[in-house]
Amino acid sequence: MERQTNKRKIINDPVYGFISIPDDFIFDLIEHPWFQRLRNIRQLGLAYFVYPGGNHSRFQHSLGALHLTTLAFQTLREKGIEITPEEEEATYIAILLHDTGHCPFSHALESTIIPNIKHEMMSLTLMKILNEQFDNRLRMAIDIFTGDYPRKFLHELISGQIDMDRLDYLRRDSFFTGVIEGSVGSDRIIRMLNVVDDKLVVEEKGIYSIEKLLVARRLMYWQVYMHKTVLAAESILVKMMRRARELTASNKPIFLTPAMEFFFKNNINDEDIQNKGDISAKTIVEQFTSLDDSDILVSAKYWKNSDDRILADLASRIINRNLFAIELQDTPFTEDRIEREKASAKRRYSLNDDEVNYYVYTNTVHHRVYSPNAPDVRILLKSGGTDNISNVSDMFNLDNLLTQRCKYYICYPKN
Amino acid sequence: MERQTNKRKIINDPVYGFISIPDDFIFDLIEHPWFQRLRNIRQLGLAYFVYPGGNHSRFQHSLGALHLTTLAFQTLREKGIEITPEEEEATYIAILLHDTGHCPFSHALESTIIPNIKHEMMSLTLMKILNEQFDNRLRMAIDIFTGDYPRKFLHELISGQIDMDRLDYLRRDSFFTGVIEGSVGSDRIIRMLNVVDDKLVVEEKGIYSIEKLLVARRLMYWQVYMHKTVLAAESILVKMMRRARELTASNKPIFLTPAMEFFFKNNINDEDIQNKGDISAKTIVEQFTSLDDSDILVSAKYWKNSDDRILADLASRIINRNLFAIELQDTPFTEDRIEREKASAKRRYSLNDDEVNYYVYTNTVHHRVYSPNAPDVRILLKSGGTDNISNVSDMFNLDNLLTQRCKYYICYPKN
Amino acid sequence: MERQTNKRKIINDPVYGFISIPDDFIFDLIEHPWFQRLRNIRQLGLAYFVYPGGNHSRFQHSLGALHLTTLAFQTLREKGIEITPEEEEATYIAILLHDTGHCPFSHALESTIIPNIKHEMMSLTLMKILNEQFDNRLRMAIDIFTGDYPRKFLHELISGQIDMDRLDYLRRDSFFTGVIEGSVGSDRIIRMLNVVDDKLVVEEKGIYSIEKLLVARRLMYWQVYMHKTVLAAESILVKMMRRARELTASNKPIFLTPAMEFFFKNNINDEDIQNKGDISAKTIVEQFTSLDDSDILVSAKYWKNSDDRILADLASRIINRNLFAIELQDTPFTEDRIEREKASAKRRYSLNDDEVNYYVYTNTVHHRVYSPNAPDVRILLKSGGTDNISNVSDMFNLDNLLTQRCKYYICYPKN
Amino acid sequence: MERQTNKRKIINDPVYGFISIPDDFIFDLIEHPWFQRLRNIRQLGLAYFVYPGGNHSRFQHSLGALHLTTLAFQTLREKGIEITPEEEEATYIAILLHDTGHCPFSHALESTIIPNIKHEMMSLTLMKILNEQFDNRLRMAIDIFTGDYPRKFLHELISGQIDMDRLDYLRRDSFFTGVIEGSVGSDRIIRMLNVVDDKLVVEEKGIYSIEKLLVARRLMYWQVYMHKTVLAAESILVKMMRRARELTASNKPIFLTPAMEFFFKNNINDEDIQNKGDISAKTIVEQFTSLDDSDILVSAKYWKNSDDRILADLASRIINRNLFAIELQDTPFTEDRIEREKASAKRRYSLNDDEVNYYVYTNTVHHRVYSPNAPDVRILLKSGGTDNISNVSDMFNLDNLLTQRCKYYICYPKN
Repeated sequence: MERQTNKRKIINDPVYGFISIPDDFIFDLIEHPWFQRLRNIRQLGLAYFVYPGGNHSRFQHSLGALHLTTLAFQTLREKGIEITPEEEEATYIAILLHDTGHCPFSHALESTIIPNIKHEMMSLTLMKILNEQFDNRLRMAIDIFTGDYPRKFLHELISGQIDMDRLDYLRRDSFFTGVIEGSVGSDRIIRMLNVVDDKLVVEEKGIYSIEKLLVARRLMYWQVYMHKTVLAAESILVKMMRRARELTASNKPIFLTPAMEFFFKNNINDEDIQNKGDISAKTIVEQFTSLDDSDILVSAKYWKNSDDRILADLASRIINRNLFAIELQDTPFTEDRIEREKASAKRRYSLNDDEVNYYVYTNTVHHRVYSPNAPDVRILLKSGGTDNISNVSDMFNLDNLLTQRCKYYICYPKN
Repeated sequence: MERQTNKRKIINDPVYGFISIPDDFIFDLIEHPWFQRLRNIRQLGLAYFVYPGGNHSRFQHSLGALHLTTLAFQTLREKGIEITPEEEEATYIAILLHDTGHCPFSHALESTIIPNIKHEMMSLTLMKILNEQFDNRLRMAIDIFTGDYPRKFLHELISGQIDMDRLDYLRRDSFFTGVIEGSVGSDRIIRMLNVVDDKLVVEEKGIYSIEKLLVARRLMYWQVYMHKTVLAAESILVKMMRRARELTASNKPIFLTPAMEFFFKNNINDEDIQNKGDISAKTIVEQFTSLDDSDILVSAKYWKNSDDRILADLASRIINRNLFAIELQDTPFTEDRIEREKASAKRRYSLNDDEVNYYVYTNTVHHRVYSPNAPDVRILLKSGGTDNISNVSDMFNLDNLLTQRCKYYICYPKN
Repeated sequence: MERQTNKRKIINDPVYGFISIPDDFIFDLIEHPWFQRLRNIRQLGLAYFVYPGGNHSRFQHSLGALHLTTLAFQTLREKGIEITPEEEEATYIAILLHDTGHCPFSHALESTIIPNIKHEMMSLTLMKILNEQFDNRLRMAIDIFTGDYPRKFLHELISGQIDMDRLDYLRRDSFFTGVIEGSVGSDRIIRMLNVVDDKLVVEEKGIYSIEKLLVARRLMYWQVYMHKTVLAAESILVKMMRRARELTASNKPIFLTPAMEFFFKNNINDEDIQNKGDISAKTIVEQFTSLDDSDILVSAKYWKNSDDRILADLASRIINRNLFAIELQDTPFTEDRIEREKASAKRRYSLNDDEVNYYVYTNTVHHRVYSPNAPDVRILLKSGGTDNISNVSDMFNLDNLLTQRCKYYICYPKN
Repeated sequence: MERQTNKRKIINDPVYGFISIPDDFIFDLIEHPWFQRLRNIRQLGLAYFVYPGGNHSRFQHSLGALHLTTLAFQTLREKGIEITPEEEEATYIAILLHDTGHCPFSHALESTIIPNIKHEMMSLTLMKILNEQFDNRLRMAIDIFTGDYPRKFLHELISGQIDMDRLDYLRRDSFFTGVIEGSVGSDRIIRMLNVVDDKLVVEEKGIYSIEKLLVARRLMYWQVYMHKTVLAAESILVKMMRRARELTASNKPIFLTPAMEFFFKNNINDEDIQNKGDISAKTIVEQFTSLDDSDILVSAKYWKNSDDRILADLASRIINRNLFAIELQDTPFTEDRIEREKASAKRRYSLNDDEVNYYVYTNTVHHRVYSPNAPDVRILLKSGGTDNISNVSDMFNLDNLLTQRCKYYICYPKN
């Protein structure tokens, strides 16, 4: 990133070519340590165990989503939608910071390091503290982020069925993993956006692009995000962290970085985050923002030599990419099958009934084409009216879009 | 990376599409922890401070160079060059492992963590130990790597003016940084390769591609590898490591990961590496292969709170990307200028004469189009003979190619 | 295209990089005037009126489809499917020549210049005559092309739900028009192919790619092939040709190139093509193979100044890209609407009841995801069995795949 | 190209994604038949005989150059350079129309159909007549095109060492031929542009990009534009046209389209074009603008059956891509060699001394890195001053840049 003498800042991005930073305050936020931290948080967890190119960071993604938002505003203004300079900046702030609350390895460790706190809640907490630091300048951004701002399309650009977050991550994850079929035509889709009654709509001729977006998302979901080897790897990572937490809880000394120690020893909850608990939100954020992928990787290297043989084994599996076998299917695994695998693991590794649960386990993964909480995509018809895409497209029906696809997996040690 | 049921292994690569692993032994080496370690070593040091996309790993690059080598062999065989299956596998091994000896952040910390040992020497050490582990199966690979194997073109494919290492890194670094002008037509260049008298040559119609390769390399050099902000960042990283080493030497306790402690407390030298010193090569390698980028990043987070205010400040600059000012020019900086900057820094930060050297320093960077130790590129003329490219191309002359371009830089705290 | 001294022929292709011609006989067929003719036949009719980049030729597409077939054979052989050298060459011949029977502007004029003869029938006729010229060397190719060869997968590679023809044209048309969302991951799909009982199957993990292929095809269909401005342009082209044919039939002299004269004055039918009619297949082919886009474009330039004001006007509209208005909808246009447009056109242009049909007309366009005559895509399950994709994918059901989507359009002069 | 309801027009371009048409008058010029004609003029002559993808049109290139000009203005304005709306539109007009004066197959037939008239002169003539049609609205565009407008940088954007014409054609020709090494980073170069004293300059950090541009141009020159097979093909095309012209001159009746007849029967000269001769500029332009690639291709198909066996043979060679052998070298061919080839051709084809010149001929091709008539590229130094690139870059010197590289070729019938 180079500051130019004339204060225009441009960042080279392999996906879009060049990204222009829209104003000085946005630039200051990018330079803030809490945003810089995202450089060391992998966007796709352990997907780089399967797709070596997929070790891009949340930092890049957040800048990309910001860039697409600038394009969306350009299109909407050309179509006569009025957006005030304050709304513009506030939306940029909200999209830029929307992922600052992510844990190391993003979704992979979301409920493991800080149970019960979702990353959106943490992002909001960071934004609130930044709002104090910057004299209330993030207030409108916070309202847009939470959906409280009356012009709903600004929130929908950040978080909706077709938001700039999703457009960027599909295109970017596709680009870096090399799964080119997951790519989406973000340019074309953005040019099809419009606003009716302060809500985001897609012009009718864009429906094929939307159809393709939904199918691309589905493909990326099963081919990358929930690739079975990724599932196997991330589940071991989670098991390793749980074991470490349990050992800490039972006062068995293991190596911990300061931030990890803080989160392992304190059970942070909603009240704390909202500054109504024992630990102040500022203290939590201070620890949280010093936590990134490197804490986990260094710990695993220490733990590989731990006295606790289960922690040692799980850590060594992560470090050396020596994963469990995994099977994925549409129906639950039978108790019988699970018991057989457990019996075999217990024998081979001399495990008791508790310990075997680190070696043999089942779980489910889900995907639905639509986010259940966001409204259906609205289409702006050539006739002038609007309608839901599930009424307009002959390819989809809403039932299908909202049905959750569920898959079951079992992990167990390879022979 | 997915193992296929029929034992064909294919890896998705965003640069080339798909990479096929040529045989089972190569696959086993890829799965070896010493190779897996490269996933956590950034190819371009701190270049991702300037080019956010440029945080790809040595792992990806090594696979890419392997892939290009398979293409080169395909082309050469189609042209009638005989390559035995042993030579083929040995060359694959050599190119795959050529970068396993890299320190964290690749070149950035090359002489800092293990002074006096170049990464090629460390790669060779690793290969020798692997050779023992694998019943001598790497012997020919080692000879090819060192240049001792009689058919020189095999070595030249790994390390020469136009080797597969260079073709991959230019194309890959260009791809991930988004500096598309640095891209090279690796496909075309490889198709222009041939072998005469066991030496690599380029067919005459390939000279324009070679010219373009050399110019692209020059562009990447100044625009990415030696970008002035990258220089500023990496020089702070080096200063931080030196400070940590000095504190360790004077028994001031600071956080160190086990591997870092080993290398800070032992001055490993050539004799050790060659198993003729006090510390066995195996011990060194064991520590070395557990050292990667995460050790440095976690240490910097600890050091940011160090009692030593210089270490604390340098670490905080790395973590928060708060860099020194840097100026780059074609002539040395005057003593006068340096003294002025030092005086100013001493005053502002209350530094003594020793300490100021962490804050104000000059250095040089060099680039020449040609590697000085490798022979000139040989061109296979349409007439059948061969000649040096500096005689054939009217664009270059050898003097120009071999002249070292030198630039001087000065770093000092921003106001 | 360059012949290399060592007889390896390589063609630069912007889509795939390099295309290798697999053997000398294939190269000779490429050099044959009947194949060279495809250089002057636009792949996408008048789509270049809307997408300026889309004026690529059938020549490129045919080479691309050949290239994908070489990749498919490579994959299938790696999976243990035996393919004899004769079968390999025969399949290459069949895919290479499958489009040689196309009229100028491909589908746009398919039933206009030679009514009642489909391009596949004409390609077959050309192949039969080439078979005589080349001592029966195309016999197996003809059997594969017609589907008579017992190993059905060879035919399916040329013409099926997922054939190399379709994979190339979707990717190529997407590339040249710039409608990047229509691109398909031909590499990945080909790597998922397998053969069971001599029939083509797709491995289970490829179903998301197949889903995406079908959606991409649908997108290309409505966004490019049946784009309403393309429909308007091609319908005028057809009307112009019909008017020219009628004038010729009623002995009104207009400019005609020799080949056009031949086809306008002779009503070629199935029997002729099969050498059972008055005009020999050889005579037809001789004329046919001298007919390409340039005949139509030059004729239109002559006709623009014709005494027949309707021909003159239609030709001038093609030359100057001055098209009719067009509307597209899901239901038929009412008689009333049509009559209103006709009445208006008659008044403005002083047309009689016959003539107005050149200015106001309705028609339909259809698309179904599946070709109705080819079997459902078979999926090779991980369990080892096979099943139809409509049973395996939860996104599609066969009814939906086979349902024909129909749209109605009306054209009339702009105000 | 789709008109959008809100009058913004966007064109899909495979090279840049989307091209926005800046205003309504520019859109009207694009719709003008004289600009639409460029759809049927191949950008690269007969280069598609070697690079099948290279049959893109002057239409696409002109739109691309327009697009880059809009980007250049955006950059320059962000840097504070004032450009009036009139200057902006005038520059767009000039770049859009700069190639309207091209003959069929662009440079290939430049001096053959209308000897002595360069395409720039013809473009200027068209612009002058359009200026009359459009009430003087092109006056400033004409001044910018001819270089008479005082703010020179506007002319330099259209025609200079680094103009938008060149940036587009290098990138576009590279894209369509698949010779990816010829690609240039137009985005980055444009962002490096600035204006000092109304002259175009490049900021210092852009010099590596400029170096790469010049090398890419050199590569495209020898690898595509002057590829020896292209030279062979285009020289036969020229010989065919000359033969046709001579036969016409000696009243031997051959097929000619109306426009070809006009130019073959009238020797248009500079005075005519300037409306000072016997034939009015309007008459010339009327004929000229109805002449495109299709005239040549259809004529060749007629001529293939001509009574004149030389015309018939040359035409058949073009139609069937049956070319002469060609050799290219750095020194002239000896008289002896030429005589030997001629003697052999005379014998084989029973040719007289005149006729043999259609079968055996030598010629030269030239390339210099710099256009000799434009000034050296000016670099805006970080220090604030400006200097010539040949002083700033250590890679080039001006002598080298201006030296004309000359190659000699000989064509003769293959055995």
